[in-house]
Amino acid sequence: MPTPLPIAITAGTAGPWRITAIAALAGASLPQAARLAMHEGPDVPPPGAWQLRGVANSNLRYTAEVERARLAGVQQGLGRPGATRAALIPMSKSEAWWDLAQDARRALLEEQSQHIAIGLEYLPAVARRLIHCRDQGGEFDFLTWFEFAPEHEVAFDQLLARLRATAEWGYVTREVEVRLTRD
Amino acid sequence: MPTPLPIAITAGTAGPWRITAIAALAGASLPQAARLAMHEGPDVPPPGAWQLRGVANSNLRYTAEVERARLAGVQQGLGRPGATRAALIPMSKSEAWWDLAQDARRALLEEQSQHIAIGLEYLPAVARRLIHCRDQGGEFDFLTWFEFAPEHEVAFDQLLARLRATAEWGYVTREVEVRLTRD
Repeated sequence: MPTPLPIAITAGTAGPWRITAIAALAGASLPQAARLAMHEGPDVPPPGAWQLRGVANSNLRYTAEVERARLAGVQQGLGRPGATRAALIPMSKSEAWWDLAQDARRALLEEQSQHIAIGLEYLPAVARRLIHCRDQGGEFDFLTWFEFAPEHEVAFDQLLARLRATAEWGYVTREVEVRLTRD
Repeated sequence: MPTPLPIAITAGTAGPWRITAIAALAGASLPQAARLAMHEGPDVPPPGAWQLRGVANSNLRYTAEVERARLAGVQQGLGRPGATRAALIPMSKSEAWWDLAQDARRALLEEQSQHIAIGLEYLPAVARRLIHCRDQGGEFDFLTWFEFAPEHEVAFDQLLARLRATAEWGYVTREVEVRLTRD
């Protein structure tokens, strides 16, 4: 795992991803825009219609060694040629969540909600990136990014439905889903 | 616990704290300067001789609920009138540390090194603030800040010696100690 990598996700008129839908699941939505790009590195591109920034490749927050090994055995990276569908899901959790000590957040996330175990079922079809922004003063607490082939979109929708039914999601205060197609 | 609070620590010619010593324990030191100030909030003051920035009041990284309750029962806040001594100890840990999954870092920090348990022995004499900066691209991974009365300086030195002898400190790659007096 390399050192933390600054990320800027910019929506506007340019970028390899065409925005096909923007929908708010909780809290305020994001403005409509035509295209989207994810930029890596410290040089921040122009802000476009809207821009979300954070850091990828940070240290693991909840995953245990045995889980990390299981994930590493099957997960695949971003940018696969066949992965022409993506979803950007920026999220925030409540103060009640962030107030919890580490063991309580871990227990909610995995022992109660099986967040890691459920996600594992959808690997390698769904490739993921987690971008943190709460400590950077961002509008959201984190930005989640998923890439998959068109034939795996139904499975991805099922993954989202299962996660959103968990106890962990009871702490989600804002969630916006941005669907994307690379063309 | 409030939301993450941006912090800027500025060394130069101004500020309530007089710098009495700067010493590197591991890695490069910081330049000498006469005085130091800790600024809270998003407005960043001028950089001075050197400036370190990060975020306080972030979520707990390793502390469990039972430990948090024990700490909360005895710890005191910054700014006590009698606490006229302080130490700023900026630190970084190795890639090997940050590469570890959450359970392995927790086990090293507490089950092996008793970091939280040792710290608890020095409360309420020593007041603490932890400032994170690794995900902000800072020069250090975090900045630790301690305040205590002159009569507790010997105990504080003992606390540092005990922590530096732990397995956790085997992962420390840079550590600078800045001693301060408020006058």
